[in-house]
Amino acid sequence: MDTSYLDLGFARVDVDREARQGVPEVVYGPGKTAGQIAGIVTALLHHNQGPVLVTRVGADVAEAVGREVPGGHYDAEARLLAWRPAPQRTFALGVVAAGTSDRPVAAEARAVATTIGLATTAWHDVGVAALDRVLAIKDELRRQDALIVVAGMEGALASVVGGLVACPVIAVPTSTGYGASLEGVTALLAMHASCAAGVTVVNIDSGFGAAMAAHRLDRSRRDRP
Amino acid sequence: MDTSYLDLGFARVDVDREARQGVPEVVYGPGKTAGQIAGIVTALLHHNQGPVLVTRVGADVAEAVGREVPGGHYDAEARLLAWRPAPQRTFALGVVAAGTSDRPVAAEARAVATTIGLATTAWHDVGVAALDRVLAIKDELRRQDALIVVAGMEGALASVVGGLVACPVIAVPTSTGYGASLEGVTALLAMHASCAAGVTVVNIDSGFGAAMAAHRLDRSRRDRP
Amino acid sequence: MDTSYLDLGFARVDVDREARQGVPEVVYGPGKTAGQIAGIVTALLHHNQGPVLVTRVGADVAEAVGREVPGGHYDAEARLLAWRPAPQRTFALGVVAAGTSDRPVAAEARAVATTIGLATTAWHDVGVAALDRVLAIKDELRRQDALIVVAGMEGALASVVGGLVACPVIAVPTSTGYGASLEGVTALLAMHASCAAGVTVVNIDSGFGAAMAAHRLDRSRRDRP
Amino acid sequence: MDTSYLDLGFARVDVDREARQGVPEVVYGPGKTAGQIAGIVTALLHHNQGPVLVTRVGADVAEAVGREVPGGHYDAEARLLAWRPAPQRTFALGVVAAGTSDRPVAAEARAVATTIGLATTAWHDVGVAALDRVLAIKDELRRQDALIVVAGMEGALASVVGGLVACPVIAVPTSTGYGASLEGVTALLAMHASCAAGVTVVNIDSGFGAAMAAHRLDRSRRDRP
Amino acid sequence: MDTSYLDLGFARVDVDREARQGVPEVVYGPGKTAGQIAGIVTALLHHNQGPVLVTRVGADVAEAVGREVPGGHYDAEARLLAWRPAPQRTFALGVVAAGTSDRPVAAEARAVATTIGLATTAWHDVGVAALDRVLAIKDELRRQDALIVVAGMEGALASVVGGLVACPVIAVPTSTGYGASLEGVTALLAMHASCAAGVTVVNIDSGFGAAMAAHRLDRSRRDRP
Amino acid sequence: MDTSYLDLGFARVDVDREARQGVPEVVYGPGKTAGQIAGIVTALLHHNQGPVLVTRVGADVAEAVGREVPGGHYDAEARLLAWRPAPQRTFALGVVAAGTSDRPVAAEARAVATTIGLATTAWHDVGVAALDRVLAIKDELRRQDALIVVAGMEGALASVVGGLVACPVIAVPTSTGYGASLEGVTALLAMHASCAAGVTVVNIDSGFGAAMAAHRLDRSRRDRP
Amino acid sequence: MDTSYLDLGFARVDVDREARQGVPEVVYGPGKTAGQIAGIVTALLHHNQGPVLVTRVGADVAEAVGREVPGGHYDAEARLLAWRPAPQRTFALGVVAAGTSDRPVAAEARAVATTIGLATTAWHDVGVAALDRVLAIKDELRRQDALIVVAGMEGALASVVGGLVACPVIAVPTSTGYGASLEGVTALLAMHASCAAGVTVVNIDSGFGAAMAAHRLDRSRRDRP
Amino acid sequence: MDTSYLDLGFARVDVDREARQGVPEVVYGPGKTAGQIAGIVTALLHHNQGPVLVTRVGADVAEAVGREVPGGHYDAEARLLAWRPAPQRTFALGVVAAGTSDRPVAAEARAVATTIGLATTAWHDVGVAALDRVLAIKDELRRQDALIVVAGMEGALASVVGGLVACPVIAVPTSTGYGASLEGVTALLAMHASCAAGVTVVNIDSGFGAAMAAHRLDRSRRDRP
Repeated sequence: MDTSYLDLGFARVDVDREARQGVPEVVYGPGKTAGQIAGIVTALLHHNQGPVLVTRVGADVAEAVGREVPGGHYDAEARLLAWRPAPQRTFALGVVAAGTSDRPVAAEARAVATTIGLATTAWHDVGVAALDRVLAIKDELRRQDALIVVAGMEGALASVVGGLVACPVIAVPTSTGYGASLEGVTALLAMHASCAAGVTVVNIDSGFGAAMAAHRLDRSRRDRP
Repeated sequence: MDTSYLDLGFARVDVDREARQGVPEVVYGPGKTAGQIAGIVTALLHHNQGPVLVTRVGADVAEAVGREVPGGHYDAEARLLAWRPAPQRTFALGVVAAGTSDRPVAAEARAVATTIGLATTAWHDVGVAALDRVLAIKDELRRQDALIVVAGMEGALASVVGGLVACPVIAVPTSTGYGASLEGVTALLAMHASCAAGVTVVNIDSGFGAAMAAHRLDRSRRDRP
Repeated sequence: MDTSYLDLGFARVDVDREARQGVPEVVYGPGKTAGQIAGIVTALLHHNQGPVLVTRVGADVAEAVGREVPGGHYDAEARLLAWRPAPQRTFALGVVAAGTSDRPVAAEARAVATTIGLATTAWHDVGVAALDRVLAIKDELRRQDALIVVAGMEGALASVVGGLVACPVIAVPTSTGYGASLEGVTALLAMHASCAAGVTVVNIDSGFGAAMAAHRLDRSRRDRP
Repeated sequence: MDTSYLDLGFARVDVDREARQGVPEVVYGPGKTAGQIAGIVTALLHHNQGPVLVTRVGADVAEAVGREVPGGHYDAEARLLAWRPAPQRTFALGVVAAGTSDRPVAAEARAVATTIGLATTAWHDVGVAALDRVLAIKDELRRQDALIVVAGMEGALASVVGGLVACPVIAVPTSTGYGASLEGVTALLAMHASCAAGVTVVNIDSGFGAAMAAHRLDRSRRDRP
Repeated sequence: MDTSYLDLGFARVDVDREARQGVPEVVYGPGKTAGQIAGIVTALLHHNQGPVLVTRVGADVAEAVGREVPGGHYDAEARLLAWRPAPQRTFALGVVAAGTSDRPVAAEARAVATTIGLATTAWHDVGVAALDRVLAIKDELRRQDALIVVAGMEGALASVVGGLVACPVIAVPTSTGYGASLEGVTALLAMHASCAAGVTVVNIDSGFGAAMAAHRLDRSRRDRP
Repeated sequence: MDTSYLDLGFARVDVDREARQGVPEVVYGPGKTAGQIAGIVTALLHHNQGPVLVTRVGADVAEAVGREVPGGHYDAEARLLAWRPAPQRTFALGVVAAGTSDRPVAAEARAVATTIGLATTAWHDVGVAALDRVLAIKDELRRQDALIVVAGMEGALASVVGGLVACPVIAVPTSTGYGASLEGVTALLAMHASCAAGVTVVNIDSGFGAAMAAHRLDRSRRDRP
Repeated sequence: MDTSYLDLGFARVDVDREARQGVPEVVYGPGKTAGQIAGIVTALLHHNQGPVLVTRVGADVAEAVGREVPGGHYDAEARLLAWRPAPQRTFALGVVAAGTSDRPVAAEARAVATTIGLATTAWHDVGVAALDRVLAIKDELRRQDALIVVAGMEGALASVVGGLVACPVIAVPTSTGYGASLEGVTALLAMHASCAAGVTVVNIDSGFGAAMAAHRLDRSRRDRP
Repeated sequence: MDTSYLDLGFARVDVDREARQGVPEVVYGPGKTAGQIAGIVTALLHHNQGPVLVTRVGADVAEAVGREVPGGHYDAEARLLAWRPAPQRTFALGVVAAGTSDRPVAAEARAVATTIGLATTAWHDVGVAALDRVLAIKDELRRQDALIVVAGMEGALASVVGGLVACPVIAVPTSTGYGASLEGVTALLAMHASCAAGVTVVNIDSGFGAAMAAHRLDRSRRDRP
């Protein structure tokens, strides 16, 4: 069998994922107690060599887990708890966020990507209502290996950036906005309907998903000489 | 009573609308026979002084109506049938369309506006996936009294144009696109969630509604010295 | 470059917007700390001449910001914090609200419009279930340069007012109501489907968006002799 | 047992419905062959005394059924095929339709109501964009025992009429309109969210349902001395 | 003018509604302060003869209003505050509720109806999953002048009752249930799609709307000799 | 490996499914040419012992396939093409349909079930608007091993039958109806929200899915002594 | 009459359900007071012989009810309160859950099933992102008489398990996940669209409904020799 | 200016896109005449060096265009018309499709990718209802640089493949299926809610979008040494 898992009773830890996909299984925090998280993290640290991450975890739980499993680092804006960050590789990942309200999602994308070894640069408050803010960083954007575009409301930034650069663009709709924003559904649909060819989309508010998509890009490049 | 109407049996014609709003009632073509349209048009021509318009009418019906009520002009792309166009006024209305598929809606907006006396200029195929197409006409856009922005898919052009100009921007979502475009609903929602302040929106594919909104702008300006 | 911005680290302030659109960038309050708001407001006051506004801000945050940046005025019903209001111009803007529950949205529209220099008049509790309340103010409505119509539930007031007046009508659906109101989505759709030609619509509960649309109308008029 | 039915093999005819509800079962035409319809109608004529109706039936099928079951009358606009109309009673039912496109639905309501014995009056093209068309018939509307209001688009006519009269108002949303009308769903939701208290609603395009609701009203009145 | 209103500054009271529709304007509680409610109630009591009602009001607010306007009665389950109940008339209104969770909505329907003078009878917990509970009261249901059917989840009770009785059936979908119930939207749609002809529907959770529809029925009967 | 498939180039036939689930893979007709269907059917007949079925196939295609693969039987109402029907087993499956428009879906359920060896009985036109039609067959329904309930519109029949019997009830929503029926989505949601415990649901119009669910029931019973 | 109920004033207890369906009526906790629950439970215990269950009840209410009606057992994870559990029968029911967040729903399914006498086995954290976790238990799954599959997010586990086993598969979508998960609606729709034939679905988060569906399976098997 | 375009009157051709993104602008066929397509293609061939593609074009239009612009190749299954295909590069792109109905979308993805120079391999009919079909190609899938997964219905294949491989996975939901599939919307939502981390999604039926996303991956790899 080329995959195996560890049964902790309350969870089946996929300890083979690191071998299969290059990064150990990432723990989704909501709905788990500090004790359960600590147990899973301990198992992952023991059976893998790479970074271990817990996403969407509040400060209180993070502190409780940290007491049981020392050596972790907590990023409050990203709500990410992590141990054993990977050494930085040469993959240049840009994170572009449309508004100040999109910062937490962008922060999660950046923190996850950095922890698993990607070199990230972030630009905030780059909305299309003032195009100069986009155009001013056009050359920098073009120097990235891939871009994560984080935007709520109508999500137009994904189309604009997608048209400016040649590299992979991963769009993250956010639940920013009110009324017709429909808690991110409008941005998700709009990004799919984008007139910029080849833009791909992940789930609403999923900075984590975007970072993992970037990881796949990097992994694919390294696997080929 | 400051309003009155004419009862044709199959329709109540609002012959007072010209006095009330500056343009005679406009006839919505679908679901009416050529005979009914001809009857309403005849009444409107008789009881009003200004232009008489029938929207969304196919070539066959237009020809049949034209035989009964001479003097009309039919615009096939706009699907507009019109009599007695108003003399052109000084209101400069720009019509900007995102893609070639948005042309029929833009054509309706332009034809209606021209018929009721606005001076229109149109730009087609100005999608945000190639920003230079927008930036190249930025100065021309800024010289307009108002802009109608026609876009389907994700509708991002409304946000981008809305951020570039100071004048009123009337956004028309179109049913262009497929899948996540949801026949124009995505563009409608996205235009409402737009990060560009003060952009207003009309119904999906309603070039007519946008032109009438522009008419209200012009009317308001003329009413005040 | 004809546009520029100021990078405060946590935000990129579009200090050129006043030159471009006639009003400095307006700060959207939710998700920002009092310190961040104060920083942005200070920058805007320094780099622009006109009014500086913060929308959707609660009393507590408003007070904290006020301690750091003196001279502001807080409107509790509108939840608007503002400095350096513009001198009143001759543009007559009417704000008509359907029910008492629609007051906060109407208040935001009026407060924003007044702060940027429009002369506003407001009518409240003008629902179509008692048409006399509408008909009684018909002549006053017709004396306005533009009207903002604020209504939740089925939003029928927009159609009724749109049919009575010739000036621009900006409809604001509100999240008033329950059940089939779908938190404003029903009113938004209904206003778009309105049988009154040329009515335009802004986002749900966006008194701010309606006021900015009115600003564009005023700006367009002033730009032309 | 106080109810019984007749099994024709392809259908179970509820021959007891006349005793239970005052009108024989009404046949829904779509999906049935002319032969099946003729069979059901023959059974209903035989086992009941009152009117027998087939709704939503095209001219071709109506003619074929008519050849097998003589004595019927076909109303092409209402698409109703009927035998043995009931004598007219004193219940005064008004049918008010907003636009010319709503005529077929209003015609179905009126034809069904007339066939089952109600005295109907109809007004067409009474949209709220020209309030005078509504106000002009206010007194006539107030003389009805009940009103059916047929409207598509935003359905505002139901609210306006509901506020003018004291009698029961049955609103019928229609699939008239395009874009944000969502094939009648917007009108249905808007009529439910109506600010006029006590308006009730039936299914989209269901002139039949509205007429049957009126029948229940009439039946309830007659049952009580 | 045959209608008039009273302007309290924060509200326009439709004091003519009693003359127009037989019951004074009913006050919708949410979003109003105790002081505002007291003001409106005082005006209504002064300018009308009939019952004055405030709906959806909590115990705290009810008590505060009661201190300012004595003589009212508060029904906690119905959340209704009322003054000057009308003498009972001979109209027999049945209220049938599907589950125990539907009680508050049924209570509102009954309390409003009773206050405006209808004679009501209520049956609770009459779900179709145990048909005997419905069949057991069939004869009683058939003795009513009209029925209000309150049901959440799939709303099937409206179809079943609609098929059993000949009188008007007013269906009230409730937000009872979870998941696929979609907070009442499923029941609302299902009640409209009902196979029982002539059932009408009001807004989700609107016991008030159903009672007012019953009032219109009663009013219509009394107006005709 | 305990599963295997056959690669025909244009399709991978799951020839092991009979061993795994007791019935060979069933061919979904739409989108396949007569030639492709004939190829798959030939392979299935060759590699399996049991019945081979093609669903949702029109008469023309069925005839063309039949010329290439003799021995099949075509059921026009069910649109099912089948070879080598299984011998009938003792599992008694009832199929109950609400209206005559639901017949084709019920026919598919019955034809598929019969072909794979279940003993089926069908009742048509058993709507809840005439409860006696349901109550009259109550005892027969209770004698079945499982029931398939086919209903469109509001789907109330599933709740009513679910409350009457103890055996498994498989509900099939159909796209019958118009307007608020939303092409079957309303019935699907309503069936899920059903107040009758333990009713399960399959996809809209999927008579096939319901029959296969019944096959799983029968299979489970036979597997255990 | 073959069914009867007990009227407690605030509820009509269906005391005949045990005779009709093999298990007494199950009490749905939300919206009922501890006193009401105790009253219903007492009546059910008195008029039936089998297990009495209250679902979705919190610890506080459970304790209060327990003080009034001794002998019950409370399962905190399942939020189930139960008296007089049935002796275990030979029906082997497997419960498979996709993620740790789906545990509460799986726990409800298992606790209800165990209480009514089914022999249950549960597997947790069996997501399809690590197929080995599914494949490792394939043989165990195939030994069950029926399977309940609990999954949120995209619900793919239902398709995968449905393809592996021949027995009945009851899928329970859960509200696990965020964004595009739409609180379980996506999983519900996806499970219906499943490519695995014969999978049936119950309401979102309804572990109870799935267990009752399994009860129907068991009941059907026992009824036949 | 680093971008420029060519104005053909009916279209603005983005002739700079090849320099900016590595592939000339791709022409979207629907809504354009053969003459317009020929004009745009001629301009693109003249101003660029790389491949020129027209998507979603029927056989008739393709033939007409081919007569005007020789040298093109038409792929009927993919509905793609192309000139001057790029030489094949070393990027290995796998295309995996769930069902035979998904073939046209997979064909578009493959044809576009091949034309722009990627080395593609395709697997069809790899549904998760027979996992062996997926597992049998696991090793081949792991040898690809990126994978496009095409699936309708519930779209579960994206989760399963996403969990098996480490490379980028681009999921394409298709409009295959009926009922709860909601014309691809269910698959789109389900793919976003996928439990496999780092899967990205493009628009419904957009084989073109997926191929362009793969192009971005390849481009990014080549740009970096």
